[in-house]
Amino acid sequence: MEIMQVTGSLVCSQRVPGLEHWNLRVLRSPKGKLSVAVDPVGASPGNWVFTASGSAARFACGNPETHTDLTIGGIIDFWEPDG
Amino acid sequence: MEIMQVTGSLVCSQRVPGLEHWNLRVLRSPKGKLSVAVDPVGASPGNWVFTASGSAARFACGNPETHTDLTIGGIIDFWEPDG
Amino acid sequence: MEIMQVTGSLVCSQRVPGLEHWNLRVLRSPKGKLSVAVDPVGASPGNWVFTASGSAARFACGNPETHTDLTIGGIIDFWEPDG
Amino acid sequence: MEIMQVTGSLVCSQRVPGLEHWNLRVLRSPKGKLSVAVDPVGASPGNWVFTASGSAARFACGNPETHTDLTIGGIIDFWEPDG
Amino acid sequence: MEIMQVTGSLVCSQRVPGLEHWNLRVLRSPKGKLSVAVDPVGASPGNWVFTASGSAARFACGNPETHTDLTIGGIIDFWEPDG
Repeated sequence: MEIMQVTGSLVCSQRVPGLEHWNLRVLRSPKGKLSVAVDPVGASPGNWVFTASGSAARFACGNPETHTDLTIGGIIDFWEPDG
Repeated sequence: MEIMQVTGSLVCSQRVPGLEHWNLRVLRSPKGKLSVAVDPVGASPGNWVFTASGSAARFACGNPETHTDLTIGGIIDFWEPDG
Repeated sequence: MEIMQVTGSLVCSQRVPGLEHWNLRVLRSPKGKLSVAVDPVGASPGNWVFTASGSAARFACGNPETHTDLTIGGIIDFWEPDG
Repeated sequence: MEIMQVTGSLVCSQRVPGLEHWNLRVLRSPKGKLSVAVDPVGASPGNWVFTASGSAARFACGNPETHTDLTIGGIIDFWEPDG
Repeated sequence: MEIMQVTGSLVCSQRVPGLEHWNLRVLRSPKGKLSVAVDPVGASPGNWVFTASGSAARFACGNPETHTDLTIGGIIDFWEPDG
């Protein structure tokens, strides 16, 4: 899973059926690459999140009929170096 | 899911059975990489779209028997910074 | 799906059972990266093709028991800029 | 599967249901890229591990209902050049 | 599928159940990236091989319960330019 930051939302009136009704967030990787993810946790711009990709993305939004390849899996509170 | 721009269409008379009859669009990533996607939404050249990859691509075109790994999921109207 | 050019064939006498009997083509991406793909369409060296990856690659060769992650989906006749 | 080093843990109070209760480790690739993985083997910071991605990640943690795309598959004791 | 060279073996006493008993090879891509693969064909260090990734990797080792995302699919004898 990847660590990304929420930068905003995407407005798409014309979508395939399996992606209607979902909030789509624009995420930015630490290297600046933009991606689009389904957001089942309610993340806000500026939040750091981790994402699940591939078939895990479909299951992570609670409905495997959702045609996403990237879903926000959780909002990062902080990151513990452990050592 | 990725943000890409439609640049044109692909003409392929010889295809595997699971990809016949589909419009195939050539897409360009922000970094200039070209990809080919199935288009179930009717995007036009110049449109910015987001794409679903992997197994989600098969489901996103409404028929999981379609042998694609990339499908246009929607046409981007605009992109809201949210903040 | 990706756009690649066929550069040759691969000779492998020792293979896993799910890849016996298939023609394996060596493909080169526009950036020069080499990959190996199952070829159900009969592409020739020099042909530009598009490829399906992931689970779509297994289905695209007509037999999901084929253990490939990359299959040629069609031979590109030409590429129409549309605009 | 990839070779990565454990650098710490991730604290996320707000997660999707399929990732509750799991230890999430932050891993660093040899090139410095950070990823997040489910840890079913009990790795410690500093350990070198190998990871399974994609659908294998869901199965590797012993419960395919876990919505992960990256799971630690084992702790590397040492790496034998064989030659 | 990718072309890689076997560089050695990996010793991991602590593994997830779905990867016990398998020989794990360290492979190097032409660009120098290291990966770990299950080896059902008995490759030796120095051999050039091609690999199957994703769900094909699970099937390629003959047991889809194996939690791998990369499996050696065959040993390359030689590579025929065809032209």
